Amino acid sequence: MVQALIFDVFGTCVDWRGSVARAVSRTLPGIDATAFATAWRAEYDPAMARIREGGRGYVPLDDLHLENLHRVADDFGVDVPDAAELNKAWERLDPWPDVVPGLARLRPSYMLAPCSNGSIALMTRLARHADLRWDCILGADLARDYKPKPAVYLASCAALRLAPAEVMMVAAHNPDLAAARDAGLATAFVPRPQEHGPEQTTDLRAESDWDVVASDFEDLAARLG
Amino acid sequence: MVQALIFDVFGTCVDWRGSVARAVSRTLPGIDATAFATAWRAEYDPAMARIREGGRGYVPLDDLHLENLHRVADDFGVDVPDAAELNKAWERLDPWPDVVPGLARLRPSYMLAPCSNGSIALMTRLARHADLRWDCILGADLARDYKPKPAVYLASCAALRLAPAEVMMVAAHNPDLAAARDAGLATAFVPRPQEHGPEQTTDLRAESDWDVVASDFEDLAARLG
Repeated sequence: MVQALIFDVFGTCVDWRGSVARAVSRTLPGIDATAFATAWRAEYDPAMARIREGGRGYVPLDDLHLENLHRVADDFGVDVPDAAELNKAWERLDPWPDVVPGLARLRPSYMLAPCSNGSIALMTRLARHADLRWDCILGADLARDYKPKPAVYLASCAALRLAPAEVMMVAAHNPDLAAARDAGLATAFVPRPQEHGPEQTTDLRAESDWDVVASDFEDLAARLG
Repeated sequence: MVQALIFDVFGTCVDWRGSVARAVSRTLPGIDATAFATAWRAEYDPAMARIREGGRGYVPLDDLHLENLHRVADDFGVDVPDAAELNKAWERLDPWPDVVPGLARLRPSYMLAPCSNGSIALMTRLARHADLRWDCILGADLARDYKPKPAVYLASCAALRLAPAEVMMVAAHNPDLAAARDAGLATAFVPRPQEHGPEQTTDLRAESDWDVVASDFEDLAARLG
């Protein structure tokens, strides 16, 4: 019944923490690059929350990332020589090792697309960097709103002209899947226990009876047959 | 300066006439399948015109194709047993032979996307059928309007976060390129003198000084370096 798989990207497909830290360490030597990357990412949800709650119109994530970079640089007391260039770190995130081969196994049977809070522009450049072969780019830009608002999942299904039950959301984050299920989508959980580093405490395991629970994308392909 | 190439699809990338005629001949044996395909396509522009002119809200091309199929079947006096299935012929159009190798040569240097009047759903399924490796799907669905309205070209550039001058429109139709140029895009013409069959009289050659005039997609790749 499922005809398309749509994917969370940051954390689920790519290692944002390690990749951003490497870019930070190249641009800002002498600071704790991993702490900087973590602080930068920590501004992500509050920045989107204002938009989700209607306190601000839709602003693409590229712009929120840049605003957040200035804020974090202030907090760290550093001057970023070329903030727009460092902001492109989010377009150059490396995939987890199972992602490219897993997508290759899934692709003959399912349409594959990101359903991320990243913009079409960001997801397009990231896919080229990380060799993620998507059939199209879905997500926040289509709904002009941010996950976990139901409009983002529903706009992604509608863009494919599929009913929500014909689409499976794949994510490493239980709340993302809960929102997708509430919108009527099928769900698949793939844990990424290193997304937040060795001391991660959240999303270490499936916290509900998702339709599929897989150890990684290759296991997901095996379970979906 | 150009960072992305965006493509007209029907006629420029794929042979809609031959492909649709083959689907018609399988579904409706005994009628002139090429004449039927041509008549079906002839309803395309009038159906979009009402939407472009504001007489009707945005309706995706999938639905216009289905409406047009019913109209043409009436004109031909035939009963279509499964119109929704025959309508999928537009998702199964075959590419011109130079398209897949040409896109493969262009892809390392440029972001590649369709800028078609086809919906995201239609372009996604067509790309899977015809093995068109796009980086993302742009076009009418993003603008909720139809080419040659400038909003379609501009929404496609904006989705990539590029200025119009950083994007080149590739098409086999001079009017499409004229509209793209008016919107500020670079332009490339590739003739498809068989799109409408052996007696084609339009778009046989470049009718303006487009930025690039190429004989096919492989020549386009060679000219763009």
